[in-house]
Amino acid sequence: MSEVILLLNPGAMGTSIGAALRGNGYRVLWVAAGRSAQTVERAEKTELQVVASLERGLADAEHVISVVPPDAALSVAKQVAAHGFTGTYLDANAVAPATAREIGAAIGDGCVDGGIVGPPAWRAGSTRLYLSGERAAKAAAWFADSPVDARVIEGAIGAASALKMCYASYTKGTSALLLAIRALAEHEHVSEALLDEWDISQPGLHQQSNAAGARTAAKAWRFEGEMHEIAATFEAADLPPGFHLAAAEIYRRIRELKDVPAEQVDIATVLEQLLAN
Amino acid sequence: MSEVILLLNPGAMGTSIGAALRGNGYRVLWVAAGRSAQTVERAEKTELQVVASLERGLADAEHVISVVPPDAALSVAKQVAAHGFTGTYLDANAVAPATAREIGAAIGDGCVDGGIVGPPAWRAGSTRLYLSGERAAKAAAWFADSPVDARVIEGAIGAASALKMCYASYTKGTSALLLAIRALAEHEHVSEALLDEWDISQPGLHQQSNAAGARTAAKAWRFEGEMHEIAATFEAADLPPGFHLAAAEIYRRIRELKDVPAEQVDIATVLEQLLAN
Repeated sequence: MSEVILLLNPGAMGTSIGAALRGNGYRVLWVAAGRSAQTVERAEKTELQVVASLERGLADAEHVISVVPPDAALSVAKQVAAHGFTGTYLDANAVAPATAREIGAAIGDGCVDGGIVGPPAWRAGSTRLYLSGERAAKAAAWFADSPVDARVIEGAIGAASALKMCYASYTKGTSALLLAIRALAEHEHVSEALLDEWDISQPGLHQQSNAAGARTAAKAWRFEGEMHEIAATFEAADLPPGFHLAAAEIYRRIRELKDVPAEQVDIATVLEQLLAN
Repeated sequence: MSEVILLLNPGAMGTSIGAALRGNGYRVLWVAAGRSAQTVERAEKTELQVVASLERGLADAEHVISVVPPDAALSVAKQVAAHGFTGTYLDANAVAPATAREIGAAIGDGCVDGGIVGPPAWRAGSTRLYLSGERAAKAAAWFADSPVDARVIEGAIGAASALKMCYASYTKGTSALLLAIRALAEHEHVSEALLDEWDISQPGLHQQSNAAGARTAAKAWRFEGEMHEIAATFEAADLPPGFHLAAAEIYRRIRELKDVPAEQVDIATVLEQLLAN
């Protein structure tokens, strides 16, 4: 009889994690209530098994994996804890170490801290899942030889989240900064001169800033919360949180672009949105 | 008889600009009062001609070029204006467009706005001097065929400064961000894991962050003011100033490293300083 893992919730990233677990022979449950048609379709394709409620899922599962937007991570953990769950609980969300420790306190000994680096894990080598805490090795074993490269790092609950915060603080922080700079150049009517200078002395940055616009438009709505978690991480270390509070504001201004078809979003759309808000 | 230009003041960048003007046959004056022995030596090497006072320099010169720390730019312009100077005045400093316009208002019709991109201009191709305003072409002509690549851009007083702000907002902003992230990783005891992940998915960033430490330590004291000018530029455009207020704080914390010999400053020194302040 295979072990059962409840996956909360199969979004773009979560579905790939569910598929990796299926590939390793685990039964993977998910809770359909309140999820979109797109999610249902994704989950069915990957042979994830639907359950009607969180209560039902927790009754059947030995383990839980939480892959949710950062601002939902703590409340999901508290709901799970409120049901008296005592199995292994992997929080794989982009949250501040302090939030991870709150999740650990809510869950108890079963908690594992995780941080994902990379895109949804559909092929080997693309995506690493960093894990910390006493049961980290146990959670890592679920993903042996799967497309999810699970790596245990030193440290207690909070270490894997800290690593994720550090990593995302550069990638998503510089994307937001590039968009802010492009918007500033538009406002000041110096875009052409700036892009010419970048082409001379910062080769690739022009293209990188265009790509930041197209790439982040659909995801900005959930980046905003992640930027707040990163800002809180800097602040707790007595380092300035302002880089990522500013990044949160940039993503907030473009969050409604998630509803615009991807092929209609380019850098011009993003800059217009940034300057109109 | 050659034209006379008063250079305020020959620091590392200013001296290279003075040398370019000398190469084009201009007499270049500078004011020695209150300057360091290092500056005197630099100026003598480049055949800049010392004058005893600002008043004396302004009496002899047809043109003035201001290359000073950002927070001194406006007060230098006001001092020059107070002496009744009516020639061409090139402000080549890293200031907000609004500061450039204040300088323009103080100086009057003779003002040219400038923004320098690149290191001190000792060889052709390394450094561009962007110029805007009605007399921009006149100032550009001073540098014809010199190592200073002077380029007139469209726009009034403020355009060249806006371009400089946009450019430096990325280079100096990301350097500060990298240092902040490295400090955060140290604080959270995940430096090794972060650098390993960067080596996998962000090749070069580890080295770039080390270099940011070594390179900025000596210059942080003047980057702080520049970051405030950039933050004001974003704010005036109704864009978030937080990236560069945070960068200013990072540079503030390491400004005292300017007095430590360069060969004794590495990333470890910088991180220690960032976390101690």
